[in-house]
Amino acid sequence: MTHMDFDALVALLTRIFIANGASAMVADILARNCAGAERDGAMSHGLFRMPGYVATLQSGWVDGLAEPVVEDGGASFLRVDAANGFAQPALAAAAPLAMEKARATGACVVAIRRSHHFAALWPDVEPFAEAGLVAIAMVDSMAVVVPPGARKPVYGTNPLAFAAPRGGEKIVVFDQAVSVLAHGDVQIAAREGHDLPEGAGVDAAGRPTRDPRAVLDGGALLPFGGHKGAAIAMMIEIMAAALTGGLYSHEVDWSAHPGAQTPCTGECVILIDPARGGSAAGFAARVEQLVEALRAAGQERMPGDRRFAAREKALRDGVAVHAEMLAQLEGMLRT
Amino acid sequence: MTHMDFDALVALLTRIFIANGASAMVADILARNCAGAERDGAMSHGLFRMPGYVATLQSGWVDGLAEPVVEDGGASFLRVDAANGFAQPALAAAAPLAMEKARATGACVVAIRRSHHFAALWPDVEPFAEAGLVAIAMVDSMAVVVPPGARKPVYGTNPLAFAAPRGGEKIVVFDQAVSVLAHGDVQIAAREGHDLPEGAGVDAAGRPTRDPRAVLDGGALLPFGGHKGAAIAMMIEIMAAALTGGLYSHEVDWSAHPGAQTPCTGECVILIDPARGGSAAGFAARVEQLVEALRAAGQERMPGDRRFAAREKALRDGVAVHAEMLAQLEGMLRT
Repeated sequence: MTHMDFDALVALLTRIFIANGASAMVADILARNCAGAERDGAMSHGLFRMPGYVATLQSGWVDGLAEPVVEDGGASFLRVDAANGFAQPALAAAAPLAMEKARATGACVVAIRRSHHFAALWPDVEPFAEAGLVAIAMVDSMAVVVPPGARKPVYGTNPLAFAAPRGGEKIVVFDQAVSVLAHGDVQIAAREGHDLPEGAGVDAAGRPTRDPRAVLDGGALLPFGGHKGAAIAMMIEIMAAALTGGLYSHEVDWSAHPGAQTPCTGECVILIDPARGGSAAGFAARVEQLVEALRAAGQERMPGDRRFAAREKALRDGVAVHAEMLAQLEGMLRT
Repeated sequence: MTHMDFDALVALLTRIFIANGASAMVADILARNCAGAERDGAMSHGLFRMPGYVATLQSGWVDGLAEPVVEDGGASFLRVDAANGFAQPALAAAAPLAMEKARATGACVVAIRRSHHFAALWPDVEPFAEAGLVAIAMVDSMAVVVPPGARKPVYGTNPLAFAAPRGGEKIVVFDQAVSVLAHGDVQIAAREGHDLPEGAGVDAAGRPTRDPRAVLDGGALLPFGGHKGAAIAMMIEIMAAALTGGLYSHEVDWSAHPGAQTPCTGECVILIDPARGGSAAGFAARVEQLVEALRAAGQERMPGDRRFAAREKALRDGVAVHAEMLAQLEGMLRT
């Protein structure tokens, strides 16, 4: 196990993305995102994803050189054509104007289409909360979640992320798949030979299973909370695809691009300026009061806390990277 | 069992609200809402709620004569002070301007504070979708849901509702509590002597229970989907209280008003104009395509379908009302 300086890890990943066909702009954004997930202890969206990024770039399914096009959709609306590139550069291209619009009018919707999202979603919302805004993000992905009563998957794991300022530098942030488990967690369980928890997946015949390989091999995931989680999955399909002009999860078809792993769908981000709200005490102070009430009731960990703790430790001690992973990463420079 | 004409039921409820201290404006809105829930087969938010409305009006906890004040918060933001009245008249007061703003800019946030919400939430979003807009509504309520790891309830049942046009007169609409069960369903189970499903509640000592009386008697409800449902509950507290200036669920204190049952908190409604989005096929047509894909996969019932079917039947045959309930309602005219 090596402990790598965060910036050195970002630099290595940047070189890998560039070596595999990404522009310097795209490489920088994806490298910070991926290294950031590893730094924050979110392994399923960290270095574990690098082979998938590289295979997808090599397959020609995603355009690593794409230049997102930001279209003004109104005083509180931006459309972004990610141009078959990654979602993160598309959001980055829209973010300054989106924040300006949210501050000028009270809200702004960012509707991104033709975008590949292969990363955690919390990095998409955190910067907005750090800038004092409330942010809600939704992404549809690829059909791996079975709706209630259905015989085959229609929904993606469709993450929902939310972030809000708490005062000072602190924020509340969560990011959760509508499936009981994220797809990356199933892949990790398969690799490491762990069983899945009860109620997380079905096999190819639709029977409940705890075997991650049965889920990956023609099986499917189940939504959290039954029909309630499924309703949220449906809302996210509508917001991230119908609204943006992106594809639904079940419409993603990469069969002509062997090696492709990134769903090309859409993303919707809603920004709200809480300074417009009606709280006399101030929004961030009120959020902090809620956190205090939760602590007083016995909830020790707030959404995001575990990641913030891991981040602090990694920025101090370096990001722990297995020697085997490091060798694998270095191999990705020679493609 | 009597079958009452919907308009006659509305007229009766209107008279009851007026007899118990509501203004004609408030009475009309609440009567349509409550009769509408009964018509749609949503018994837990229908006539079953009338004794609670009446007791709360009589307790002085809610102001039946309140005149909501709509405050312009920006090109895409409205604040509404419900003035300790019901939430539905406050939303109705803001709705025309909110829709105008959403159509002019692409989005509008309606942040309602000092509002009592004792009804189903789907009636708050349906009219927006029927008018071609996407609507998301969130309401916090009163502390009856235990956060993960906590020893006492902090969250309300905090419903989330979503509605979107599907083309023609059709819409997609869902409305769901963050608890496994709505509080009204627990009350009905207690009255009718049914057990609750597994995992829905705990007793006063925090032990899992299926007894609805144990939940109501110092116990609490659990969020759907464990920590994921709890994260949504937290988001709703932040959006409906911190953003609006309303109270958190755990801050509601009606102890000085015996008989009071309506939480006085806040409500946040986000409106989005999907015509601003990036879909070349058109938003509603795309939503309809998703519904078709779900049907093709084997999901027979869409969110809202059961209510629409009940509504159609009740508008044709009348709303079925028990003679006992009718007598009870008529008794409420003589207070």
